[in-house]
Amino acid sequence: MNSTELLHIIKEKKSFLCVGLDADINKIPKHLLNEDDPIFAFNKQIIDATIDLTVAYKPNLAFYESLGVKGLISLQKTMDYLDQFRNQIFTIADAKRGDIGNTSKQYATTFFDKEKSGFSFDSVTVAPYMGSDSVMPFLEFENKWVILLALTSNKGAFDFQLIKDSETDTELYKHVLEISKQWGTEDNMMYVVGATKAEMLGEIRKIIPHHFLLVPGVGAQGGSLDEVVKYGMNDKCGLLVNSSRGIIFADSGEGFAAAAREEAKKLQLQMQDLLIKNHIIA
Amino acid sequence: MNSTELLHIIKEKKSFLCVGLDADINKIPKHLLNEDDPIFAFNKQIIDATIDLTVAYKPNLAFYESLGVKGLISLQKTMDYLDQFRNQIFTIADAKRGDIGNTSKQYATTFFDKEKSGFSFDSVTVAPYMGSDSVMPFLEFENKWVILLALTSNKGAFDFQLIKDSETDTELYKHVLEISKQWGTEDNMMYVVGATKAEMLGEIRKIIPHHFLLVPGVGAQGGSLDEVVKYGMNDKCGLLVNSSRGIIFADSGEGFAAAAREEAKKLQLQMQDLLIKNHIIA
Repeated sequence: MNSTELLHIIKEKKSFLCVGLDADINKIPKHLLNEDDPIFAFNKQIIDATIDLTVAYKPNLAFYESLGVKGLISLQKTMDYLDQFRNQIFTIADAKRGDIGNTSKQYATTFFDKEKSGFSFDSVTVAPYMGSDSVMPFLEFENKWVILLALTSNKGAFDFQLIKDSETDTELYKHVLEISKQWGTEDNMMYVVGATKAEMLGEIRKIIPHHFLLVPGVGAQGGSLDEVVKYGMNDKCGLLVNSSRGIIFADSGEGFAAAAREEAKKLQLQMQDLLIKNHIIA
Repeated sequence: MNSTELLHIIKEKKSFLCVGLDADINKIPKHLLNEDDPIFAFNKQIIDATIDLTVAYKPNLAFYESLGVKGLISLQKTMDYLDQFRNQIFTIADAKRGDIGNTSKQYATTFFDKEKSGFSFDSVTVAPYMGSDSVMPFLEFENKWVILLALTSNKGAFDFQLIKDSETDTELYKHVLEISKQWGTEDNMMYVVGATKAEMLGEIRKIIPHHFLLVPGVGAQGGSLDEVVKYGMNDKCGLLVNSSRGIIFADSGEGFAAAAREEAKKLQLQMQDLLIKNHIIA
């Protein structure tokens, strides 16, 4: 999927919502634990309840891997189920990978090469610490994206991401943007920018005006959608705003899917307003 | 396993070798492809041929994940096989993980909590970009280690790791060392420092004189063992030096395991000399 196709879906659904499939076995409704595959059963119902309201799904790999082989099978089933919606949805493997070149190539195979790994995500999140050769192997796959960490939504973001470079007097996360934007294009690179730091989005937009941003941290982590749009939206939307726990764990009973839909609908309606206000849709 | 126990194994085996189990399906001997599980068959023979010469095994997760569910099963079998050597070997999940707190907690479960994930590695490699709360959840597991990326062995290391902080005039990787050494102890934190940058080990030892270092890049990537020891060894050895391709793919025929043993033996003998010279063993 390229950025034009992604914008098309955003306009069709009047939404730039990404639903984080952080399917925590300890938090899913108890009645699902009787199913053969509780995680897949949960994801399937969440997907069915939100597919028309969301433009992207983002399974967080950690929640699947923590269940070992069984967890990876649940993820496989989830992605196979999403296959039927291929042109209606953008998929993100939230995996925060990154290693030396020959290893990153294997990770790219993991997430992009269905024939070898069983998975064909549209994109994967990557950590920038190891530099260019840790990112480039992902960009060699056509129509696949790297979503590079720039400024994350957590407290620890302040430990290193804001360190100022003595030569250029710019913060590390800006340096990451400046250097890495040369590695790919606006059709194969996005950036993670936390909603909890919305005011910094203005600065970020000066460096990468046209790239899509994946923005976590709205909802459970406390970020504001209006602020994110104010500073981060561009003329092609340029935003995917993620909500995980706020949607998928809105209710822990039998009505969890309907409750998830309700929360997703609230966000979609806010997004629709914001898309109209910013002249992305009429 | 704590650092005293690790040093004990080093003295017993007269070695500080780590063998990287980067079991690439495209590089393992062709005759193994007829086995039910070629990757496990390969690993088992490599382990049997090198167990007395090496103090650590480091499966690189990417090579398993790139085969999807099947690959994770091969890794599971490999780790189950290693269980019988529990007090003779230190195990490293080379996974380069790191995410916000609640997610890193899941990754810690993945690698450390056998009951939930099936895996019980002694340690996991973690990327520092997201800061303290991305690392701390791993340190909550008793007798388990974080091996944090500091200065990596690849070309891309120069993109961000050497950026100088304008306030303190220190490079990012040193800043990572200074800050992160407060998060854990010498019994639950190690650092990745590439052998290709051995001369920088002297600087690193000024900041963390007592921590163990995991040093990749000897062999295929061009680093020198003598240089690494000259600048990096401390009075408790303080080094695990990794070789992957140079050992496991020394020969691609039926005699691959014997060839791997030969390469491992060469390194072990060099290490024995260096341990004697540095008065770690008599």
